[in-house]
Amino acid sequence: MANGKLWVIKIGGNIIDHPEGLSRFLDRFANLRGHKVLVHGGGKIATRMAADLGIEATLVAGRRITDEAMLRVVTMVYAGLTNKQVVAGLQARKCNALGLSGADGNSIKAVKRPVKDIDYGFVGDILPGSVDDDVIAVLLEKGFIPVFSAITHDGEGHLLNTNADTIAAALAVALSSQYETSLVYCFEKRGVLRDMYDENSVITEIKRAEFEGLQASGVVADGMVPKLHNAFDAIAKGVREVYIGHADELHLLHEQRFGTRMVK
Amino acid sequence: MANGKLWVIKIGGNIIDHPEGLSRFLDRFANLRGHKVLVHGGGKIATRMAADLGIEATLVAGRRITDEAMLRVVTMVYAGLTNKQVVAGLQARKCNALGLSGADGNSIKAVKRPVKDIDYGFVGDILPGSVDDDVIAVLLEKGFIPVFSAITHDGEGHLLNTNADTIAAALAVALSSQYETSLVYCFEKRGVLRDMYDENSVITEIKRAEFEGLQASGVVADGMVPKLHNAFDAIAKGVREVYIGHADELHLLHEQRFGTRMVK
Repeated sequence: MANGKLWVIKIGGNIIDHPEGLSRFLDRFANLRGHKVLVHGGGKIATRMAADLGIEATLVAGRRITDEAMLRVVTMVYAGLTNKQVVAGLQARKCNALGLSGADGNSIKAVKRPVKDIDYGFVGDILPGSVDDDVIAVLLEKGFIPVFSAITHDGEGHLLNTNADTIAAALAVALSSQYETSLVYCFEKRGVLRDMYDENSVITEIKRAEFEGLQASGVVADGMVPKLHNAFDAIAKGVREVYIGHADELHLLHEQRFGTRMVK
Repeated sequence: MANGKLWVIKIGGNIIDHPEGLSRFLDRFANLRGHKVLVHGGGKIATRMAADLGIEATLVAGRRITDEAMLRVVTMVYAGLTNKQVVAGLQARKCNALGLSGADGNSIKAVKRPVKDIDYGFVGDILPGSVDDDVIAVLLEKGFIPVFSAITHDGEGHLLNTNADTIAAALAVALSSQYETSLVYCFEKRGVLRDMYDENSVITEIKRAEFEGLQASGVVADGMVPKLHNAFDAIAKGVREVYIGHADELHLLHEQRFGTRMVK
């Protein structure tokens, strides 16, 4: 690929919420060689902040609704507090981070999720072609490390709360037209485990053709099913490989010893 | 100058706090021709947010102190909520805004204000040479409109609350080495008034040599003295001209009919 290797790394709330874990992750991320993009989720800070402000989380049919008050809170926390703390932490590690929401540089547009049975409020879905890979490539070529919070916009002045996993996948798919792109999900386990009670039973590689078998045998179940489904979807759309593993082991990526690797 | 004309525009809390006024300003800013940078202050949202969170504003000798809790609030509000609302508003006007704090791209470094009589807490002072004009020029040349919030960093992982007027002046001074730079302060009056009770008594131009006379005669007094002092300081350091006027009249800039113009 003309522009070389690119890592799109996603970290979730479990890392954001623990300063020591976040610090260890930032060390490892800063040391990662090649072009890279970071996407961070929210963590519990927004939930706590909303509670402190007396804003109640609205749940409809068990799903969280982003009303206007909650949108303000997640914008403040994700795009403000968390994003700038991560950026400042990376700058301290000589990593030239530049924090972004999807509104910045019009990098990621989304549409407010259409109301069917449930009105999810100000939640954005990313349609195909809504990531401006040229804008991100310009920043990468100039030596910046884009750090995305999980906030997008609709292009008409409205911010939207958007799932961080989805943002990471959409970025990786869009950038795979210009870079040899690997998508990396950091979570609280060492990878896809053959035995969920044994952290040493990591399955090192899963091919698309093996996915159904692992589901049928119950090895891949519950929350892992959509994760792997999305991973193989990204691969089908041009991403070279998708990793899922523990943030503390990010330094093993270069040796291909990180977590579980999903390939075509 | 090799890179042409640049406007550095600063808006204060009085605009941020009023949606209609902000919307009018964004219309005018989006229409401004030439390279441009926006710097926004905070407004009362941070103060209200702090109050809602039960964080009391700490005042020492009448000066506001930025303790850790308040730093979190201003980071959330300035770099998160306000910055992203302004960016999304400009994107809706086809203005390719990109929101930044000083930590982003290491664009503005500051030092925590040294403790003499008062410990101001996490307040950053910008030392000469701490603005990376090359980083900002790269963004401008790529067609982005940088939108700065009043948050900087110390390069060691700490965010700092920094006066927005100071940020605007430091940006204009640094960028004047690459652009023919005009610095524009928008505030709640139409300019420097000969008679403070008559909004039609705007002094259209003040030369450096006239400043002392206007002070001696009492025409320039109180809060206007440091504003004009900083304006002439920026001019002495390379900025071509400094304007001060009402945000609603920004469209008159191109005709040189905006507010009061300070020149060498």
